[in-house]
Amino acid sequence: MALVVRVGPAREVWWRDTLQDLLPDVECRLWGEAGDKDEVDYAVVWQPPIGELKTFRNLKCIVSMGAGVDHILLRDPDYPKHVPIIRTVGTDLRQRMREYVVLHVLRLHRRLPDIEAGQRRHDWDQIITPTAPDRRVGILGLGNMGADVAQALAGLGFSVLGWSRRPKEVAGVECHHGSAGLSDVLKQSEILVCLLPLTAETQGILNKDLFARMPKGANLINVGRGQHLVEEDLIPALDSGQLSRATLDVLCQEPPETDHPFWDHPGILLTPHVASLIDPAAGAKIIAGNLKRFIAGEPVPDMVDVAQGY
Amino acid sequence: MALVVRVGPAREVWWRDTLQDLLPDVECRLWGEAGDKDEVDYAVVWQPPIGELKTFRNLKCIVSMGAGVDHILLRDPDYPKHVPIIRTVGTDLRQRMREYVVLHVLRLHRRLPDIEAGQRRHDWDQIITPTAPDRRVGILGLGNMGADVAQALAGLGFSVLGWSRRPKEVAGVECHHGSAGLSDVLKQSEILVCLLPLTAETQGILNKDLFARMPKGANLINVGRGQHLVEEDLIPALDSGQLSRATLDVLCQEPPETDHPFWDHPGILLTPHVASLIDPAAGAKIIAGNLKRFIAGEPVPDMVDVAQGY
Repeated sequence: MALVVRVGPAREVWWRDTLQDLLPDVECRLWGEAGDKDEVDYAVVWQPPIGELKTFRNLKCIVSMGAGVDHILLRDPDYPKHVPIIRTVGTDLRQRMREYVVLHVLRLHRRLPDIEAGQRRHDWDQIITPTAPDRRVGILGLGNMGADVAQALAGLGFSVLGWSRRPKEVAGVECHHGSAGLSDVLKQSEILVCLLPLTAETQGILNKDLFARMPKGANLINVGRGQHLVEEDLIPALDSGQLSRATLDVLCQEPPETDHPFWDHPGILLTPHVASLIDPAAGAKIIAGNLKRFIAGEPVPDMVDVAQGY
Repeated sequence: MALVVRVGPAREVWWRDTLQDLLPDVECRLWGEAGDKDEVDYAVVWQPPIGELKTFRNLKCIVSMGAGVDHILLRDPDYPKHVPIIRTVGTDLRQRMREYVVLHVLRLHRRLPDIEAGQRRHDWDQIITPTAPDRRVGILGLGNMGADVAQALAGLGFSVLGWSRRPKEVAGVECHHGSAGLSDVLKQSEILVCLLPLTAETQGILNKDLFARMPKGANLINVGRGQHLVEEDLIPALDSGQLSRATLDVLCQEPPETDHPFWDHPGILLTPHVASLIDPAAGAKIIAGNLKRFIAGEPVPDMVDVAQGY
């Protein structure tokens, strides 16, 4: 049994060695030193070079080193579609995403930017906001992380609406689905959080038409992928007042050019893709555990639906 | 049966009329139009004029229009100590405090000010913080609001230490008490939140000696009273690096003078006493409900321990 690892060059050897320790029965190789590709059963990858996955003709399974699989399925038209993919989630990723989204929902809910502006003016301006039960927060995407975030917000007292493509149930959250359900969520969401997977269908979903279906002055948080947002639609929506503020952790190009207009817009908080990431040590354990389950023929909870694209 | 109301002049008539509607069997009077003071059984007050409460010689009960009673007990040395006090808490007050403290703990935990500074520099500086289970947050004061806040933070994943004068138990929170317990909490708290009642004992508790007992570079959040903090000790602690940041919702004088040094210090976020406040309509219902229970001889949960001062 053999496995290949493909990450950025800086950490590839670390990953190979770490997975080798955790999976003594599998021969772990670097992508560039794969040897006889027909011997390779498993590929653990982040942004694999386009067209190369199909050259491993006997692959039994691919592991995405992250929750999203758009870096494989959307980028590589030659992806061998019969090969199953396991995503990597884990508690760390969920924990970090929960912290980030709760922080930024509360920041917008309590109008912290306006309170900070008061301090700069030496103005004791007591801005009083409604309480969380009177604030409707919409969560697009009720996967592993979306459901966790929705429940954390509901636990703090927010009125949370969730949306997913297919019907889901999340305790304490008003769940909607499909295109009719999307309208119901959008028209009520004062703060909208995008936690969708990136697929051909969700690419560009955050655009001027969607903003127009939200209450005037609503707020947007994007922690999905940069490609969910039609970037040129954002500043006009902010400047017209259709949106009040946007908090973006992801962009189409990261890092953005130094003259990207988002850096300096007063309505945009740009964070450098720090919402959630996998700690390598924890991630390697999760990946090895999932591969062991797969090899043993046991069910793997984080299996991707390749046909759906997420 | 008669009751007197004393608030700021702007709302006093509203309070008298609202309480009269809610308590039809009690004659509700304004403080300045109390008539025969010997007829007055109940006083509903915020910052009553010093020395005047004792002139109502047949008072059976005083209601504080807030969770704290320092505006009565600490200010008025002539307070008639045999008269019981009911504090006013309610879900709104707890909900707002929970939102504020969770927001500001997360803001410091995730180093949002440093991330915002990166945006101002157009610098995609990926600041990665530990996850909440590896972050120890200390809560001073485990009363109604302190316990709620501690549980909300624990629910999000933080390692929460609580401290109170007398032993308490709060699910999911490591509880300490007394002066030995205070040292245990201080030496571990990377973020310390003051939610104590203001009493003769807690006045000035946030001072340079306390800061020195915390880990170097810790953060402070004060949502108690301004008098908990020895204001002149704060900037030296920040400038020496003993504290990293302070978030203050309360000050000794509110609003502060326009040249108060806290306005412009880069390590201080000053918010204009907005963490938590009672919505008058909700507050009036809570007060009337508590008074009805008191009049009927039923137990009132929000009774103050006058001897302890809170």
